[in-house]
Amino acid sequence: MAGSSPTGGLVHGIGDDCAVVRLSPGSELLVTTDLCIENVHFRRAWHPPAAVGHHCITRGLSDIAAMGGHTLACFLSLGLPENLPQSWVNGFFRGFLAQARRFKTPLAGGDISSARQITADIVVTGQVPAGTAVLRSGARPGDRIYVTGSLGGSAATLKQLFAGKKIKPTRSNTHFYPIPRIAAGAWLRERALATAMIDLSDGLSVDLAHICEESRVTAIVEAIKIPLGKGADLKLALHGGEDYELLFTVPRRAKVPARIAGIAVTEIGEIRNRQDYSSAIQILGDNGKVRPLPQRGWEHFARRP
Amino acid sequence: MAGSSPTGGLVHGIGDDCAVVRLSPGSELLVTTDLCIENVHFRRAWHPPAAVGHHCITRGLSDIAAMGGHTLACFLSLGLPENLPQSWVNGFFRGFLAQARRFKTPLAGGDISSARQITADIVVTGQVPAGTAVLRSGARPGDRIYVTGSLGGSAATLKQLFAGKKIKPTRSNTHFYPIPRIAAGAWLRERALATAMIDLSDGLSVDLAHICEESRVTAIVEAIKIPLGKGADLKLALHGGEDYELLFTVPRRAKVPARIAGIAVTEIGEIRNRQDYSSAIQILGDNGKVRPLPQRGWEHFARRP
Repeated sequence: MAGSSPTGGLVHGIGDDCAVVRLSPGSELLVTTDLCIENVHFRRAWHPPAAVGHHCITRGLSDIAAMGGHTLACFLSLGLPENLPQSWVNGFFRGFLAQARRFKTPLAGGDISSARQITADIVVTGQVPAGTAVLRSGARPGDRIYVTGSLGGSAATLKQLFAGKKIKPTRSNTHFYPIPRIAAGAWLRERALATAMIDLSDGLSVDLAHICEESRVTAIVEAIKIPLGKGADLKLALHGGEDYELLFTVPRRAKVPARIAGIAVTEIGEIRNRQDYSSAIQILGDNGKVRPLPQRGWEHFARRP
Repeated sequence: MAGSSPTGGLVHGIGDDCAVVRLSPGSELLVTTDLCIENVHFRRAWHPPAAVGHHCITRGLSDIAAMGGHTLACFLSLGLPENLPQSWVNGFFRGFLAQARRFKTPLAGGDISSARQITADIVVTGQVPAGTAVLRSGARPGDRIYVTGSLGGSAATLKQLFAGKKIKPTRSNTHFYPIPRIAAGAWLRERALATAMIDLSDGLSVDLAHICEESRVTAIVEAIKIPLGKGADLKLALHGGEDYELLFTVPRRAKVPARIAGIAVTEIGEIRNRQDYSSAIQILGDNGKVRPLPQRGWEHFARRP
């Protein structure tokens, strides 16, 4: 019953007042929670229930990845409308549990209630050797900025959905079935290569700003270097959310391979001293001009027209 | 920043992808999650926001108590309607954080979203020395059954609210401000006195059935011995929920003090071999007659007329 952690895992799961989880000796616990609410984070008309379940647990798994952690167990609190078809619930659990199995993160507890809209709160627990969690606060001037995979692909699909296009929710479309970069995050943490790390859930412009804020630095990114996802343009790659790739910084002279744990990694810019510039993040455009990069992140469905 | 655990506590709280929590060496992690949804678990007209916040975290703290654990940190996912007054949110946090402080359980993370009804999912983490968590499954025939405090008081207040009575939500009314029995639970675990334990959230008849089911035993309780809460009759004490007292079993010859950690404890019955009776729990009435005790638990507001 051990999770994807080398040792450690679930001792007692569902069926008692609490789950009991064993950590590896010398480890620290990671905990993340993420809400998924109907018509805010997903729409029943667009997102099949298995994709919603998959997405829901992936949000938590991706947060563990961003700390360089291994997962231990997950927990799910579900609020369900009374008229919700059982087939929807079955589909949700099918997607959720398949992804939980794939990342060896057993469902160890939760709660259930009636609710007016589908509400899923996911908790994922994980672990890292004490003192090694990769925080957002460790980026230093001169560090180079990298991303895994490509950006904007999820937002490109979402844009098509908003435009009224019918999109087949295939497994290979990361809008429907995003992949948490657990192995790449752990690889970076094990080698103490990443000085700071975050997962790209809100969008590059917002998530890079989080790193800069916590690290008290600023940054410059180069438009031409940003790897575009399927169907994405620069704007979607900069401001689209939910790619669940990793954004990380490494010391200037550190050697970074072209691929980590099977995923391409791309250098996209550099961390700068905050005094060198205004506090705004800069972007070097295709035209050779530097301009401030505004923080425009992922907007929830509810706030859209 | 340490929680109520002797050692261990929060290393990094709000502001990163995950919280980082340190456990005491040789400990195992406890995790519980509980949903609190408007018009299911509380009503805005009856329950002031501070009481809702207090209740919400207390549900999780009480689950840690039922394992004999010490708390480490808590997490809160909140779905809030867009037209909800800020004063409601402030009141909720005032009640929530006061109770978190009282039980040295820092708020270490969470999520927030818009939602159609107020939705709060609480996660409480705690710890016990490895292998010592008090489970529901350890009750043995001959064990005596105890409860802390008194029962039915919360349901008595709820009954009055349903009857249209105006009830002042005073601090001393455990319907509005229940008290988790963390110290009593830990005391029982430290002395390896309790063979099984659960918190009384659903009601004695249902929660005792959970112990019997997990322990593959049955039980008999004596009506006359059940300590009645303020305003409660036997029915409310047997079937009313949300008292958040502890129900536990101890070996027949073990010595149990009259008070544990300042709380009165009362023997109310005995665990029996399942083969001695039908699987139904029995109750010895005031009239000297034994009858089966039906499991009628706490019913959510939404299911009431």
